[in-house]
Amino acid sequence: MTERLHAEVARSVRAVRDAAPLVHGISGTATQGLVADGLLAAGARPLLTSTRDEAPTLVAGADALLVNLGSLSTDAREAIEPTVEAAVRHGIPWVLDPAAVGAAPVRTPLARALLTRSPAAVRGNASEVLTLHGGSAGGRGPDSTASPASADRAARAVGKEHGCVVAVSGAADLVTDGDRVVRIANGNPLLARISGTGCLLGALTAAHLATAAEAGVTALGAVVAATAQLTCASERTRAAGPGSFGVELLDALDALSGEDVAGMAELRWE
Amino acid sequence: MTERLHAEVARSVRAVRDAAPLVHGISGTATQGLVADGLLAAGARPLLTSTRDEAPTLVAGADALLVNLGSLSTDAREAIEPTVEAAVRHGIPWVLDPAAVGAAPVRTPLARALLTRSPAAVRGNASEVLTLHGGSAGGRGPDSTASPASADRAARAVGKEHGCVVAVSGAADLVTDGDRVVRIANGNPLLARISGTGCLLGALTAAHLATAAEAGVTALGAVVAATAQLTCASERTRAAGPGSFGVELLDALDALSGEDVAGMAELRWE
Amino acid sequence: MTERLHAEVARSVRAVRDAAPLVHGISGTATQGLVADGLLAAGARPLLTSTRDEAPTLVAGADALLVNLGSLSTDAREAIEPTVEAAVRHGIPWVLDPAAVGAAPVRTPLARALLTRSPAAVRGNASEVLTLHGGSAGGRGPDSTASPASADRAARAVGKEHGCVVAVSGAADLVTDGDRVVRIANGNPLLARISGTGCLLGALTAAHLATAAEAGVTALGAVVAATAQLTCASERTRAAGPGSFGVELLDALDALSGEDVAGMAELRWE
Repeated sequence: MTERLHAEVARSVRAVRDAAPLVHGISGTATQGLVADGLLAAGARPLLTSTRDEAPTLVAGADALLVNLGSLSTDAREAIEPTVEAAVRHGIPWVLDPAAVGAAPVRTPLARALLTRSPAAVRGNASEVLTLHGGSAGGRGPDSTASPASADRAARAVGKEHGCVVAVSGAADLVTDGDRVVRIANGNPLLARISGTGCLLGALTAAHLATAAEAGVTALGAVVAATAQLTCASERTRAAGPGSFGVELLDALDALSGEDVAGMAELRWE
Repeated sequence: MTERLHAEVARSVRAVRDAAPLVHGISGTATQGLVADGLLAAGARPLLTSTRDEAPTLVAGADALLVNLGSLSTDAREAIEPTVEAAVRHGIPWVLDPAAVGAAPVRTPLARALLTRSPAAVRGNASEVLTLHGGSAGGRGPDSTASPASADRAARAVGKEHGCVVAVSGAADLVTDGDRVVRIANGNPLLARISGTGCLLGALTAAHLATAAEAGVTALGAVVAATAQLTCASERTRAAGPGSFGVELLDALDALSGEDVAGMAELRWE
Repeated sequence: MTERLHAEVARSVRAVRDAAPLVHGISGTATQGLVADGLLAAGARPLLTSTRDEAPTLVAGADALLVNLGSLSTDAREAIEPTVEAAVRHGIPWVLDPAAVGAAPVRTPLARALLTRSPAAVRGNASEVLTLHGGSAGGRGPDSTASPASADRAARAVGKEHGCVVAVSGAADLVTDGDRVVRIANGNPLLARISGTGCLLGALTAAHLATAAEAGVTALGAVVAATAQLTCASERTRAAGPGSFGVELLDALDALSGEDVAGMAELRWE
């Protein structure tokens, strides 16, 4: 019953490598290095311009856009809305990663406003998705303090209301389009021990959405594929600690073919 | 005679891993990746928001604050003073890392002004500590051109005058509360061959100060513990070059227990 | 016939390690980590201050300046012109890396204006050099879509008109002073699979120009030496994937002596 989904995963991973989509990312400075290198390892190409004067122009030449609110700079804050507007105008799929919403006074209303601007997908942890949906899940800092289970309903509601795919990261990941729900059971605890793996997942999600239509992959399939690609790569590492894990994660993203990811992915419809 | 200090080191390293303190860091963009990953490897959690609109709010939920002046951005410059004020108001310990003061026209007076805002600790190299104390040690760029010895008196004076712990990094590290002086003889020359290890030491110092009171560790003991943790981890690597050293340093920070660090630490009261 | 050039390469790599020049870099945030660590691995010292209030003052104490337009921040944009002016006034050699010019509306005219401010060297890919010369090579994002061959004439023209050395990165690198042309055949396809290797080449070029005069190396020889150092280091790695490649590249930059680089370099006059 998940056969068709596994086929979409294989096709989507392959399509990113074949088409090398240009992914424009407005993202926190601390994790830009991993985001750029992770995109390159998966076969995509990063573009990280984050100023109001250039980002809205440059996004027109990109194949997808990631807006990640992590440690939001003044440059990024001023660039985000016009860049999202330009992406929507040009029909470029974009991903909202509401990093650290909750306590953050600027990001929380900004994330909610952005949610109404037709993101193709939203990616966050349980706290962030609950906050987006109007709750006060109250993470302190970038980590989730809510259980993935408690965020399931919020994710479906956000997906249904805004017509987007929502991915909730956690010990087991959940992806929903508001209607159907997929769980991905892959992963490695070390993913939470280096900074930026959540941001990278948002960027990979954008890359997969960029190539989905042409590859005959649904939006739900593309977001599942991005999650499976990162979590399966994390399982392929044999790292003893977080430093080597970061290095091996990039090597594994580069090494795993679409068939490899589809073969490893533990997907389940709910 | 250093037995009690070794016990504090063990306890402090363990407390950081157990309590997972949230460390808010305002720090230079080039080294944010290492700062975040190093905090995570030691068991703490990073939060790197650096804007005037969000940092003063978010620091209230953090357990400690690091203010590092390295390659000071406009965002950071505007955020630092209100964020420090908020930290002090909420009783959150904060660490001043006066990176590259001396020649830098904005950072030098800023660092001196911040020194009067009750930092729990100051961490710098010999040149930076001499400059803070009013001298013109004149480093060009981020490296020290003064010998650690020449900075000893300045460190004690700063500690005594401002009631804080001062750590001077160098071939042998020195930690003083203005009265007592501890030397830490551990280290690895490769620490100076990758960027950001000084910034990471400042961040680890903040993490240890966050958990000190609850763990029955003195402020002096916490700063010694942070220094011992990083320098002992650097000794545990077997890297042939700076690239692998950076990777293995994170693995070693993750692997070394409090007992390991206490067992390796070469501490000496002066 | 390339004997003298090989000797210059050996001397220049050695001179950087012996003199440890301070290289001031105004560069994109995503790649600052690799730029700083790569400079340190080669024996130079990085300084990455990018604000209008501090960069023009600090550059006076530096030995060379890199201006890289990659993901240009507002801070960097405001700092670049006064910092270049200060560098020129103090006789400090500076390198222009017109990253991602073409589509970028601010960077393209800025790069052309900077070209008239006496850079010692320009480093870019084929698209960027063609754009600088007035063409519309039209890269989308940071990658070149023009062949190195097609940029040869533009590189010579830019070198001749502006009296600088121009380096065009690609499968085979080209370095010209407008008159003479050198090809460097070394490299590794993985150089294009991690972010920031182009930025690092610009920074190493600045480091070699800083020590050239004292080491009896021509400007052309210094730029060839920087290119050879990075591309030969890339050949020395045995990495299976991009993650390990980034680590081993730093180790190799650290390990290769001037003689090693000269012995490996495949140089050819045209």
